[in-house]
Amino acid sequence: MKIKYELLKTCGNARRGKLHTNHGTFETPMFMPVGTLANVKTLVPEELKEMNSAVILSNTYHLWLRPGEDIVNKAGGLHKFMNYDGPILTDSGGFQVFSLAKNKKKDITEEGVHFKSHIDGRPLFLTPEKSIEIQNKLDSDIAMSFDECPPASADYKYLKNSVERTLRWAKRGKDAFNNPNQSLFGIVQGGPIEDLRRFSATETVKMDFDGYSIGGVANDGESKEDMYKAIDYSIPYLPQDKPRYLMGVGEPIDILEGVERGIDMFDCVLPTRIARHGNVFTHHGRVNMRNLKFREDFTPIEEDCDCYTCKHYTRAYIRHLLVANEQLAGRLLSIHNIRFLIKECEDIRNALDEDRFKEFKEEFIKNYTNK
Amino acid sequence: MKIKYELLKTCGNARRGKLHTNHGTFETPMFMPVGTLANVKTLVPEELKEMNSAVILSNTYHLWLRPGEDIVNKAGGLHKFMNYDGPILTDSGGFQVFSLAKNKKKDITEEGVHFKSHIDGRPLFLTPEKSIEIQNKLDSDIAMSFDECPPASADYKYLKNSVERTLRWAKRGKDAFNNPNQSLFGIVQGGPIEDLRRFSATETVKMDFDGYSIGGVANDGESKEDMYKAIDYSIPYLPQDKPRYLMGVGEPIDILEGVERGIDMFDCVLPTRIARHGNVFTHHGRVNMRNLKFREDFTPIEEDCDCYTCKHYTRAYIRHLLVANEQLAGRLLSIHNIRFLIKECEDIRNALDEDRFKEFKEEFIKNYTNK
Repeated sequence: MKIKYELLKTCGNARRGKLHTNHGTFETPMFMPVGTLANVKTLVPEELKEMNSAVILSNTYHLWLRPGEDIVNKAGGLHKFMNYDGPILTDSGGFQVFSLAKNKKKDITEEGVHFKSHIDGRPLFLTPEKSIEIQNKLDSDIAMSFDECPPASADYKYLKNSVERTLRWAKRGKDAFNNPNQSLFGIVQGGPIEDLRRFSATETVKMDFDGYSIGGVANDGESKEDMYKAIDYSIPYLPQDKPRYLMGVGEPIDILEGVERGIDMFDCVLPTRIARHGNVFTHHGRVNMRNLKFREDFTPIEEDCDCYTCKHYTRAYIRHLLVANEQLAGRLLSIHNIRFLIKECEDIRNALDEDRFKEFKEEFIKNYTNK
Repeated sequence: MKIKYELLKTCGNARRGKLHTNHGTFETPMFMPVGTLANVKTLVPEELKEMNSAVILSNTYHLWLRPGEDIVNKAGGLHKFMNYDGPILTDSGGFQVFSLAKNKKKDITEEGVHFKSHIDGRPLFLTPEKSIEIQNKLDSDIAMSFDECPPASADYKYLKNSVERTLRWAKRGKDAFNNPNQSLFGIVQGGPIEDLRRFSATETVKMDFDGYSIGGVANDGESKEDMYKAIDYSIPYLPQDKPRYLMGVGEPIDILEGVERGIDMFDCVLPTRIARHGNVFTHHGRVNMRNLKFREDFTPIEEDCDCYTCKHYTRAYIRHLLVANEQLAGRLLSIHNIRFLIKECEDIRNALDEDRFKEFKEEFIKNYTNK
């Protein structure tokens, strides 16, 4: 069965909805924690449920290399392999091909991309058909079309060629798609250029995907303004009855900006990645928990946070674990950071329900940036 | 309040008992997982409870260096600092001084030991009084006397001097001891030498500690035979009404040998350390889960294991996490390995209760060594 998006309410461009999947329904707007290699780093599914996380993303490129899609398929699909029974979205591998291989030789042809493994340097070739085949075997709830992710520095001509190729790749992937229990999203590209985004969105929507992503917004060097442009120039051409997913975005303020512009779903490695380096989200901005000032601070990271970490541990204890290089620190901080973004989305949904999103956003940003 | 040992039953030298502490009662024989730096690596207290772990050990030397005993004390003691409400035993730092500093210059004087920090090389000086002061501040349930741990290669003269010094240090520590809610164990040393163990045990018992440890059995190069001798030569001189703890021992077979000889408590970093390298205890011996043969093995580590890991994950998934260097692997395998030893002790206690310890031990060893 395909996913079904239920639009509950709009508030300007912002949308309040639900996404029904074969592995349960989740509310939107929603942040999706990233489980790159079939696990959200350091955490188990029970912990994700406890923090009210309702859908995760996993990476096709990484699972293709390790353990390989055939092993996941033999396990009964990604849900069974990783013992997670909630909805899973898989990306296409396109972003990893372009980001992980960015300093290495890669060869983009009409057929697909030749590049080298980030693990052992062996030559790899990923095509739209191969990306879809892998995702079909992983059996995630939502698969992504294989797209080209142009660099932030790309000029108009490069972007135009890239958008056109991504459309051809989207068509090839859709034709190759062969999993009746999985849904497939198209990806809108076109950089910060209005006519390219319009062209990409219009043509992608014509192919009638189960949902639409806005890509090319999480590159190194991408400015916030360009990200907002990419969204603003794409959204008007996307249908109201399909979910919209902003790929790779998860800064607390970016989520607010995305929701305001009409985005339903977000993902980002940020909460878990910064956690492993000792950094946490707070309502007064990001904080490094290694700071000496927390040495004898026996209060939680945030007093009113309802996460497991804040309910049980002090800043002093967390700082101690970080300074002593204990892995438990990364686990506890990942819990806090993911819960922070999940809770932010809950608060956003409540604000939308109560017609006070604009005020909520202003207040949140004021606190977050003023510290 | 001091601990109280309740002897329920003997079976040859083996003992079935209970230890009552200010943080709950636990059954003996019992294995204690090691929480070196105020956490059992990668795990939270709820997970320890779920695996029926009832008492942990934490390391005075490590906590002295990081975060420092004063910070733990200001937090309200080690239990509050690490959010663990079960019994905690702290070692004295003696073993770490001699093992971590083994390739570095150290100077053993009557007053104490001058050595260098394993973290930054700065000079440190640990004395019996300082060790007790640190442990008093950590406020564990059970503290250990500061002892000298002679190398496995030590000759009779060295051992004799060392035993005599350890007795003087035990007395000094006992005199310095100042925490009415904490109990203090004496440590029997003397290598594998009968008259030294007898002397050490007899003189230590004269000082009337709350319990007795057998030390000097977990050194590099120590043979199993020497370990058994150390126990056999010490046990006859220890009182029946006090608990006996074999320090640093946690190999599944060594636990059986220790119990048979009259030991009540064990600790070892083995289950968590080998877990982080991908190794697990099974009833047919140790197994490395990275092995290629587990690539498509969708069964649990052990079919009849009741641990969280075995109930939820397959060998193929665990191998994948290990190969991909995901920290979650160490966490899942630590759970299995600790549960293995905790369960072994449960099985031992049941066997003692049902007068079939000897048969249980033989069967266990046969399975464990024949693979």
